[in-house]
Amino acid sequence: MHATRTGEVMAAIRAKLTSRALVTGDRLPSIRRFAATMGVAPSTVVEAYDRLAGEGLIRSRRGSGFYVTGTGLPPMALAGAPSDRAVDPFWVSRQSLDADPATLKPGCGWLPADWMPHGALRRGFRALARAGDAILTDYGQTRGSLALRRLLAGRFAGEGLDVAPEQLLLVTSGTQAIDLICRFLLRAGDTVLVDDPCYFNFQALLRAHQARVVTVPYTQSGPDLDAFAAVLREERPRLYITNSALHNPTGATLAARTAHHLLTMAAAHDLTIVEDDIFADFEPEPSPRLAVLDGLHRVVRIGSFSKTLSASIRCGYIAARAEWVEGLVDLQIATGFGGPSPVAAEVIAGVLSGGSYRRHMDDLRQRLTRARRETARRLEPLGIRPWLMPRGGFYLWCQLPEGQDSATLARAAVTEGVVLAPGNVFSASGSASGFLRFNVAQAADPRIYKVLEGAMTTSQA
Amino acid sequence: MHATRTGEVMAAIRAKLTSRALVTGDRLPSIRRFAATMGVAPSTVVEAYDRLAGEGLIRSRRGSGFYVTGTGLPPMALAGAPSDRAVDPFWVSRQSLDADPATLKPGCGWLPADWMPHGALRRGFRALARAGDAILTDYGQTRGSLALRRLLAGRFAGEGLDVAPEQLLLVTSGTQAIDLICRFLLRAGDTVLVDDPCYFNFQALLRAHQARVVTVPYTQSGPDLDAFAAVLREERPRLYITNSALHNPTGATLAARTAHHLLTMAAAHDLTIVEDDIFADFEPEPSPRLAVLDGLHRVVRIGSFSKTLSASIRCGYIAARAEWVEGLVDLQIATGFGGPSPVAAEVIAGVLSGGSYRRHMDDLRQRLTRARRETARRLEPLGIRPWLMPRGGFYLWCQLPEGQDSATLARAAVTEGVVLAPGNVFSASGSASGFLRFNVAQAADPRIYKVLEGAMTTSQA
Repeated sequence: MHATRTGEVMAAIRAKLTSRALVTGDRLPSIRRFAATMGVAPSTVVEAYDRLAGEGLIRSRRGSGFYVTGTGLPPMALAGAPSDRAVDPFWVSRQSLDADPATLKPGCGWLPADWMPHGALRRGFRALARAGDAILTDYGQTRGSLALRRLLAGRFAGEGLDVAPEQLLLVTSGTQAIDLICRFLLRAGDTVLVDDPCYFNFQALLRAHQARVVTVPYTQSGPDLDAFAAVLREERPRLYITNSALHNPTGATLAARTAHHLLTMAAAHDLTIVEDDIFADFEPEPSPRLAVLDGLHRVVRIGSFSKTLSASIRCGYIAARAEWVEGLVDLQIATGFGGPSPVAAEVIAGVLSGGSYRRHMDDLRQRLTRARRETARRLEPLGIRPWLMPRGGFYLWCQLPEGQDSATLARAAVTEGVVLAPGNVFSASGSASGFLRFNVAQAADPRIYKVLEGAMTTSQA
Repeated sequence: MHATRTGEVMAAIRAKLTSRALVTGDRLPSIRRFAATMGVAPSTVVEAYDRLAGEGLIRSRRGSGFYVTGTGLPPMALAGAPSDRAVDPFWVSRQSLDADPATLKPGCGWLPADWMPHGALRRGFRALARAGDAILTDYGQTRGSLALRRLLAGRFAGEGLDVAPEQLLLVTSGTQAIDLICRFLLRAGDTVLVDDPCYFNFQALLRAHQARVVTVPYTQSGPDLDAFAAVLREERPRLYITNSALHNPTGATLAARTAHHLLTMAAAHDLTIVEDDIFADFEPEPSPRLAVLDGLHRVVRIGSFSKTLSASIRCGYIAARAEWVEGLVDLQIATGFGGPSPVAAEVIAGVLSGGSYRRHMDDLRQRLTRARRETARRLEPLGIRPWLMPRGGFYLWCQLPEGQDSATLARAAVTEGVVLAPGNVFSASGSASGFLRFNVAQAADPRIYKVLEGAMTTSQA
């Protein structure tokens, strides 16, 4: 046994803890894999892991490897400058949000500004300038605008989901909605189930909660049911977070049969489900929803208006069991004070109640259908193929040619002013390095395909 | 020993854990006090506490009683209807925010709508209706509007606090600012120091973080320095959260000498300080600031525009060490996605950069000075006296006549449509039951004094 090499392996794991590349509940790399990574014998890794376990930093779980305990970890990672960062779940967000205007962003998660309903929003702000004093300056009610909650309840009733306005809580974003629910339901170290692949920010959020993340493979009709059954049985997750309509990043649709089986299993294992409905209005026709089947018993519906109306006017919602909403209200007061912005809700309610919203969404859907076909057509000569042709929305989850690594391409492309969304940021199991997610509404510029081709050629050379 | 009585005491404590009346790090009621409350012998409480400790739910700490461990606690409290609730730190918030328009709110924490600068805000919304497309619909940069951050940096420079715009992070509220910092720096069970009394929502926030709260008595010139030294030595808090300018609820001002000594002790014990500067613009002239003395080394400055401009346009800020801001940006992405509302920042920046803001604040200060005197004058015949006549702001921390309990008065007054702010919601040590906090801007209606007089008479009867 080389004492120095053992020390090196221990230092490498400690560095992962310090940088929060590994957090409470995470599984350590397997002994075989980490031995290969470090160029040492497996017995050296065994020795290092045993010593770290002796220090209490990790612990072994029979038959399933070593896990981070959460003892003695430092505060949240102090990240370096964005461009130095690893291609992790924050990478796409930071590169996209802080991009200069000249940067092309086929990897980002929103529509271009000129696809959004500016006329209706401008009318909303003019109306606000004439609104009553209280709405312009007061905190508003703890659950947020009753007018907007009634509008939402009316829309949900049309789907067959009966929700009282008291069961709705307005928040500042879809992400904040999930964050509040996690705060309400989870404790550090709890196990949470997500799809593989899933929206990358679910992973970032769950890290902030020090949750242990487990995954289920996502198929073209929803989560793989056998794998779902196995993970419920073996991992006992407290929560499952998913998108049903137009799943991010795959664009897949949950099948009715899958939805029913999934809810039956959830009931048997007392699993709570957060159904993120943020892309619902992009569907050509409604697809099965867990919240509708379940009636908000163990499903929480969340959503926002960032993708359809405005991400600048921060407004989202939670629909949940009445007694849970009471607890969520307390949490929102404790952690943000008051409800969400009354002026934001006023503008959103104004746009939603007018006839222009339906026309806006009709236009968007048609425009996206064209853009989806066009993007697939332009990726074809590069050997990049959609895993699925989605029914709606703005994502295209694409498989790269054999041997290409999406993180390598993304790192190369960003130096040329193109932000891509590499597969592994969506995969908590690290199994999607051969995929890229394209936003078809942000993929019109020919330069994107030139940069992509150049990066693929270089990486193959 | 009566087994049944021991069981009753255990059940009573378990109920407090289930309802989160007690959370991780909280001290259990003293044996003597709880024996009196339950009408049992102290030895029965000793037996019950020992058994609960045996179950791991609580643990004893030598010489200082029993504490909640955080093992096996349920999810966040499922609260009952607001009116059934205990007079706890959420009580004033929920009663005030969800009050109907006819309710009088001398206990609330904001100015009446008609004291706010509606002209400037309406101009801001009209300008927004003519602004560029991107600001109306895009997420904006991760740190929020550069224009507003530059304005803030300019104002801070005028105080002698040099801050680069990169050291500023915009958020949706002052409370969210503190919440992000707590998420960044704290782990469940960490000890946090607050003033006694302090803003009640600090306690609610720290409960959500499962922090252990310790207190230092607040004097008319800041925290008591001897007590501060003792608590640093004995309790080793990780963080101290305070208001320096126009302390909430007392209206006291931090003295320069106190500020200097406090920072010296903080350095010796590696204590981080959050200085909540939300009332700064209400001061007649600037008072000493920890952030200015320290230069943002171990002090984090937070603030918002909810008290001076609008609570409906949710916008606050954090000024901190550059490397901390990087971590806070990640956390804000993970838990809320993107930065704070660009439209909110645009309106705030517009109002702050115009000349009208200074005039608005001049008017407010004069109006508040008159209201403060008038409120004190009207409380005098009831035997209710200010603990201190503050230099500015809208709070008056008042002592009740001997024998009056502010929670009893608050419960009686709310049934008559008057929301009061009883002392103990501000005191983590429960030592301020003889105080009420009045908002002098919300205290003009004579009915308030009638209801108060009636409640005091009834409670004495």
